[in-house]
Amino acid sequence: MVNSKDIKSRKDYKFFHEISTRWNDNDVRWHLNNAKYYEFFDTVIAKMLFGIEGLNLKQDKKIFVTAETGCSYYQEISFPDKVTAGLKIKHLGNSSVQYDIGLFKNDNNNISAKGHFVHVLIDKDSNKPLQIPSAIKKALQKFS
Amino acid sequence: MVNSKDIKSRKDYKFFHEISTRWNDNDVRWHLNNAKYYEFFDTVIAKMLFGIEGLNLKQDKKIFVTAETGCSYYQEISFPDKVTAGLKIKHLGNSSVQYDIGLFKNDNNNISAKGHFVHVLIDKDSNKPLQIPSAIKKALQKFS
Amino acid sequence: MVNSKDIKSRKDYKFFHEISTRWNDNDVRWHLNNAKYYEFFDTVIAKMLFGIEGLNLKQDKKIFVTAETGCSYYQEISFPDKVTAGLKIKHLGNSSVQYDIGLFKNDNNNISAKGHFVHVLIDKDSNKPLQIPSAIKKALQKFS
Amino acid sequence: MVNSKDIKSRKDYKFFHEISTRWNDNDVRWHLNNAKYYEFFDTVIAKMLFGIEGLNLKQDKKIFVTAETGCSYYQEISFPDKVTAGLKIKHLGNSSVQYDIGLFKNDNNNISAKGHFVHVLIDKDSNKPLQIPSAIKKALQKFS
Repeated sequence: MVNSKDIKSRKDYKFFHEISTRWNDNDVRWHLNNAKYYEFFDTVIAKMLFGIEGLNLKQDKKIFVTAETGCSYYQEISFPDKVTAGLKIKHLGNSSVQYDIGLFKNDNNNISAKGHFVHVLIDKDSNKPLQIPSAIKKALQKFS
Repeated sequence: MVNSKDIKSRKDYKFFHEISTRWNDNDVRWHLNNAKYYEFFDTVIAKMLFGIEGLNLKQDKKIFVTAETGCSYYQEISFPDKVTAGLKIKHLGNSSVQYDIGLFKNDNNNISAKGHFVHVLIDKDSNKPLQIPSAIKKALQKFS
Repeated sequence: MVNSKDIKSRKDYKFFHEISTRWNDNDVRWHLNNAKYYEFFDTVIAKMLFGIEGLNLKQDKKIFVTAETGCSYYQEISFPDKVTAGLKIKHLGNSSVQYDIGLFKNDNNNISAKGHFVHVLIDKDSNKPLQIPSAIKKALQKFS
Repeated sequence: MVNSKDIKSRKDYKFFHEISTRWNDNDVRWHLNNAKYYEFFDTVIAKMLFGIEGLNLKQDKKIFVTAETGCSYYQEISFPDKVTAGLKIKHLGNSSVQYDIGLFKNDNNNISAKGHFVHVLIDKDSNKPLQIPSAIKKALQKFS
């Protein structure tokens, strides 16, 4: 069912963050509910952005907002599994960033789920898209 | 940025369920976190499935699992907004169901977010895909 | 096991807010996970505070932070049950507010869970407790 | 405001589990929402119970359900802080277990929050309290 080109491995990603699962991530099926995967995508991206010099997620007037997300689920994950989220920037546009994310269950080298995430930089007050400043763009480039 | 054909309205959906937002659905941006939208997709689908005769989500050996999900975000939603989730079955396959979901903020007639959700019917023990029984298929058809 | 004086009913509360449950509120036991009840406590309090003139939760420099919470669980709640959260102010101190909260499952008149919640008003920058302004105090008094 | 005897440290707990915070654990105040603490309590208890021989959380007909929970919040925690949850059994009754839980922020030795959690062993079908089998009781005793 899954195209073999989609089964990425750790080497396909540039930034990693380890996430612990929680008892109530499991839904009635004893597996992580599909919505929880998006908490992990969010988390690895935010963790990476916290490390970008010149970005202050808390005080900046320019903020990244989420325009589009998606996930393909290949393998079940259950508490108390550990998850490593890997991130790669697929496309760096004028005002948007497209992320490709892989979730690795425990020590697996092949992904259990593949995420897609699009951020747009906007002005907090006007809600209008902004050009990503070149210094930020340069810093992000090392993850592409 | 958004293609006008994507801006669906209430008439494009077949089953509706009203969902109340919660204080902590808002993230640091004072808007619903992107992962929360998927809790709503899940919820409207489950609510519809609860009404399908011949399906017992709790006791059946055949269960629907999530293969793929996606969301496009058009307009911000914030607690204490109300959300109406509308659902339509886009494709009814042998063992899978593709849902198209629209989230309506308060009394808006145009969607604030558009979701995509794919369920696959599997055997709980073997994890193998199963053919959707024809009676279930027939019942689902009224939402397509 | 439950003391009969604890089994409060709708008449014991002063402000109500209806909350819809979600598919993934259920944990592996097919009942709402214990942590979810606290999302409801939060929500009914925030909803009430949104209606208090002179309070602007988003822009004020004085904010309420949570000092203490608690819950006794009397009866299971499951998706797709509806929940009505009732609130009463038990104690209005100089800088703190103690809430008594009851959760009502569907149309039940007796509570399914009883919550306890303590807010303290602090200055956002200094983190120091502040005196609740008398106009706010007066507005809150109608819920006690 | 906090009684000094309540400020426990790592030595007061018997079982530890490390938990990573997530971007959307933060609520609009940029700190972990109060309900999230309960996800951590749940998680450290479940993790400990997974290690008890003779207990099978998934298949057993006897299950632990939550009767009472509580939390005192001493210090703010924010994503991307790490949390270590420490657990100690305060009381081991005939059919109930009372847990005392401490949350430690990053490398702090003093707790940031103190939790209280009561589990009751019941029969899944009848919902009636059961006596905790002596082998389980003995295994739990090492955490008291």
